Amino acid sequence: MKKVLIDCDPGIDDALALALAAGSPSLDVVGITTVGGNVDLPLTTANALALREFLELGNVPVTPGSAGALLRETVRASRVHGTTGLGDVVLPAPALGPADGHAVDFIVDTLKAAPGEITLVAVGPLTNVALAVRREPRVVEWARDLVIMGGSFTRGNHNPAAEFNILADPEAAAIVFGAGWTVKMLGLDVTLTAVVTSDVLDRMRSLGRLGELLLAPAAQFYGVVTADGGPAIHDACAVAYVLDPSLFTCVPAVVNVETAGLYTRGMTVTDFKVTAQDANALVATSMDVKGFWDLVLGAYEGLAGRLG
Amino acid sequence: MKKVLIDCDPGIDDALALALAAGSPSLDVVGITTVGGNVDLPLTTANALALREFLELGNVPVTPGSAGALLRETVRASRVHGTTGLGDVVLPAPALGPADGHAVDFIVDTLKAAPGEITLVAVGPLTNVALAVRREPRVVEWARDLVIMGGSFTRGNHNPAAEFNILADPEAAAIVFGAGWTVKMLGLDVTLTAVVTSDVLDRMRSLGRLGELLLAPAAQFYGVVTADGGPAIHDACAVAYVLDPSLFTCVPAVVNVETAGLYTRGMTVTDFKVTAQDANALVATSMDVKGFWDLVLGAYEGLAGRLG
Amino acid sequence: MKKVLIDCDPGIDDALALALAAGSPSLDVVGITTVGGNVDLPLTTANALALREFLELGNVPVTPGSAGALLRETVRASRVHGTTGLGDVVLPAPALGPADGHAVDFIVDTLKAAPGEITLVAVGPLTNVALAVRREPRVVEWARDLVIMGGSFTRGNHNPAAEFNILADPEAAAIVFGAGWTVKMLGLDVTLTAVVTSDVLDRMRSLGRLGELLLAPAAQFYGVVTADGGPAIHDACAVAYVLDPSLFTCVPAVVNVETAGLYTRGMTVTDFKVTAQDANALVATSMDVKGFWDLVLGAYEGLAGRLG
Amino acid sequence: MKKVLIDCDPGIDDALALALAAGSPSLDVVGITTVGGNVDLPLTTANALALREFLELGNVPVTPGSAGALLRETVRASRVHGTTGLGDVVLPAPALGPADGHAVDFIVDTLKAAPGEITLVAVGPLTNVALAVRREPRVVEWARDLVIMGGSFTRGNHNPAAEFNILADPEAAAIVFGAGWTVKMLGLDVTLTAVVTSDVLDRMRSLGRLGELLLAPAAQFYGVVTADGGPAIHDACAVAYVLDPSLFTCVPAVVNVETAGLYTRGMTVTDFKVTAQDANALVATSMDVKGFWDLVLGAYEGLAGRLG
Repeated sequence: MKKVLIDCDPGIDDALALALAAGSPSLDVVGITTVGGNVDLPLTTANALALREFLELGNVPVTPGSAGALLRETVRASRVHGTTGLGDVVLPAPALGPADGHAVDFIVDTLKAAPGEITLVAVGPLTNVALAVRREPRVVEWARDLVIMGGSFTRGNHNPAAEFNILADPEAAAIVFGAGWTVKMLGLDVTLTAVVTSDVLDRMRSLGRLGELLLAPAAQFYGVVTADGGPAIHDACAVAYVLDPSLFTCVPAVVNVETAGLYTRGMTVTDFKVTAQDANALVATSMDVKGFWDLVLGAYEGLAGRLG
Repeated sequence: MKKVLIDCDPGIDDALALALAAGSPSLDVVGITTVGGNVDLPLTTANALALREFLELGNVPVTPGSAGALLRETVRASRVHGTTGLGDVVLPAPALGPADGHAVDFIVDTLKAAPGEITLVAVGPLTNVALAVRREPRVVEWARDLVIMGGSFTRGNHNPAAEFNILADPEAAAIVFGAGWTVKMLGLDVTLTAVVTSDVLDRMRSLGRLGELLLAPAAQFYGVVTADGGPAIHDACAVAYVLDPSLFTCVPAVVNVETAGLYTRGMTVTDFKVTAQDANALVATSMDVKGFWDLVLGAYEGLAGRLG
Repeated sequence: MKKVLIDCDPGIDDALALALAAGSPSLDVVGITTVGGNVDLPLTTANALALREFLELGNVPVTPGSAGALLRETVRASRVHGTTGLGDVVLPAPALGPADGHAVDFIVDTLKAAPGEITLVAVGPLTNVALAVRREPRVVEWARDLVIMGGSFTRGNHNPAAEFNILADPEAAAIVFGAGWTVKMLGLDVTLTAVVTSDVLDRMRSLGRLGELLLAPAAQFYGVVTADGGPAIHDACAVAYVLDPSLFTCVPAVVNVETAGLYTRGMTVTDFKVTAQDANALVATSMDVKGFWDLVLGAYEGLAGRLG
Repeated sequence: MKKVLIDCDPGIDDALALALAAGSPSLDVVGITTVGGNVDLPLTTANALALREFLELGNVPVTPGSAGALLRETVRASRVHGTTGLGDVVLPAPALGPADGHAVDFIVDTLKAAPGEITLVAVGPLTNVALAVRREPRVVEWARDLVIMGGSFTRGNHNPAAEFNILADPEAAAIVFGAGWTVKMLGLDVTLTAVVTSDVLDRMRSLGRLGELLLAPAAQFYGVVTADGGPAIHDACAVAYVLDPSLFTCVPAVVNVETAGLYTRGMTVTDFKVTAQDANALVATSMDVKGFWDLVLGAYEGLAGRLG
């Protein structure tokens, strides 16, 4: 069992990533924290709560965190994720509310309580993670690993230079990449290959309530609004990496986050001409797409069986 | 009784500010938090602990906070404050240690417990205050006031553009000035007028143990190393403002902290051509120097009487 | 006879500076070049042409130069100088037109033809001078001196950080200050003391056609629109410096022009803690105001006598 | 006959580009201007002079221009091009010297004399072109076209973000891309496909004096020092584009040159999501590699026949 703490901003692809986690018996989700990102914090928290119950994640605590970026004005992606953050998906109203306390404290306390055991998976803006690092620098040692969906070593998506999660809080990302750990970076370079093809969509549709209420409408909405060959479920790649790193080719790199440019704020400037010991990141450069979908759809099938 | 929570990085002038607070019966110091600044965090914390006992501040909790800046590399002022942070001052070793927990949590929890009652006085880099604001935005409402020593509307001291406290964490300062409250800014423009003249120094020397062990050696060391017309005890101005705002002429302004310049990072760009409701700061532009010293020396005398 | 080449953007205070030059028998104006600045280039050129004839500067060539900044969007000061650039001043239409060619070539060729003899006086944005330096780096050796009106070592006028001439083309100013010569900088710190008092204005009014048509209406218009105890005739200080440097206290400094800040672009960051050989500028820090007006009004009187 | 004015910094691939021009009967080279870039200006000029005679370009004027960047410190690529700028290539000493005057004036005057006729081909840092634009904005109308080798819409070569020619003078590039024409941009995205394979190298070797003295040693030296699948003769792509644009797929884009980033200065941030009328560039996205080599080797063969 791999323990994961998932920091997210659901978000359509966050939902599909949580579903992957929920459908993976080898993962133990010890907590979900939320951050303002794709949509505002109240919505990402509400979505996380609805997903926890719909995905039958039990009493995993959902703890809300940072509403906005450390320093910059808020950037949202409502155009991509719809005004609720989940496109046309409508889930049953959850019975349970969020945990008390703040995501930053939850991250610090949870990692502290099990040093070396928990992998932090961050698939939204890195505000909570950065605040945790500055609040308690030892989280870097306590975390088993940090896996993020974010950045790119070629081009961005929100603009030509920057990927959304990093653009939404460049200073937080700069703190996180500079904190001393080796960030496992799943950027657009691989996540844009995680495309829901029509075959995949057909299989999703066949997965009972899970497919009908969540997977298919999520993927379809996403497919309508994203360009570039359609719905790539970015965040699921980060969970897939935790489940099976061998699906990904990864290369050590120094990643610097641009915080000062006129046109390049939030860019993850990635230098591969480095020695392994200088590297602050292990950057995924390609993905076994078939293996990825086998993993993801396998997990979805198992989950669908449980959900009915 | 005005309640104050003092966030500081002692630091010679921090020590003289704490002595002013300790000698002012109308002030109730509810907590001291420390931050890396003039010297490293372990030293600022050790100095705060030694000062708490020497100044007979009782069991006011001393809670350590952030060791370094949010984003930037560490800048120190050891040249000005000596390697210990207190110049040639040597105080008795304290018996008590620091409180458990972290300064950011202490600030949040203490302000939350007494909304509208406690003035936050920050005389070091603004890292702790910024993290408190981002961790819990309501501290802005809960604080009775925020009074800082920092910045300048003309020239800096650490370099031509920037004052040390702001330069040491420009992003934190930008967060604090943008948080929604009206920052009371005591900058170099007034604090450089708080000069320890030879008359003042003579009076300090006559104040028993307080004068001999703390005030006089502090001022003398400071006087040797600071240029520009001698030892100006910057931080004491912030406490003096809490005690008697009428000593200061203050003007509403919009203060923007430069975070991106090649030569101007950490500058507090101060625009006075603003309406009061647009202002994010009330900036001290001049000080009644005689009144200031009457207040400060009066407090020191009262304290000296108590300390013997 | 001191030879001067005046690069300007008339502009009310440019007009008063040209009048000072025209009224100073010890100056030989070898050329006037124009730049877009206070108002657009066609207007600054037209004003220079009208002034050349009204001030009886003979056939001194007036050569138009750069319309806009090297890199940045155009900033104008029409609010201060009126839509024509000369406020309410209306001069007779000139008979002569501009010289052929471009200001940059004129500067290069003129300085080259008399190495070590000609002082370049620049009282507008530094675009022409910067292009001349980059087009022919030896102008730095050929110029006898470079005297500018621009910058400030404390606060700006166009915004809290920047003076207008530098703000209007920060990159040009950065080139000029980095070119290898010692820039004589007459900034706001002194030029704001060159105030037209009511006594001065009375004397201007009494100066025949010169006073009635140019000096008095120029100063009066300027007085209406400028704040800060106004009308300060900035540009005249640069010509006054050429005529009598002893009127000014000057201090060696390293001046760096900020080109990258969010709030500080165009600021002349002035460091006085430098050795004379490191200095790239000699910065005026104060002016003998009475001596300045004696010089200026004396020149105006002499000129008024000639103009009738 | 297409008239071209080639602004260059030879440079190995500049040499191969000049050879392509010299071997193309449909091109009329009306001038060569030099700029500091791959190596210092005296070397790029000396190399241009040697190439003019070796390639039998007759009395085409070679006019030296800018030694360094507009604003930034000099960046050189001597590691890639050798200390002379031509690797191991040694050409006969030329008999003729450079033209009088300056490249900027030559560009302005030459384009002015034949409006709409001459294509400006710039394969070095854009300093000369930028100064020409600022010196005389109408060059933008007078030029038939501007074709550059420079930039990238994905990754750089000199660092992860920036291509060398743009990095060497970002402000100049920003001026050029903002000047109002549609820049034809041949960036690394295509030029890195112009690889000298072993087959191509064999053919080069067989081309008599041209092959033995210039082409083969140039390509071999380049192959040793450049990584990434080796010797890509970037600059030749710009000349090839003039000769046959149909070899290239080009897409309209808005290209902004980053001048302010910490890690991204000199990056050509390329936005393809624009309308054709908003575009300031036509960016080559792919190249018919076989067609390119047919064109280039054909020209080289013709030239080799002439040179003996």
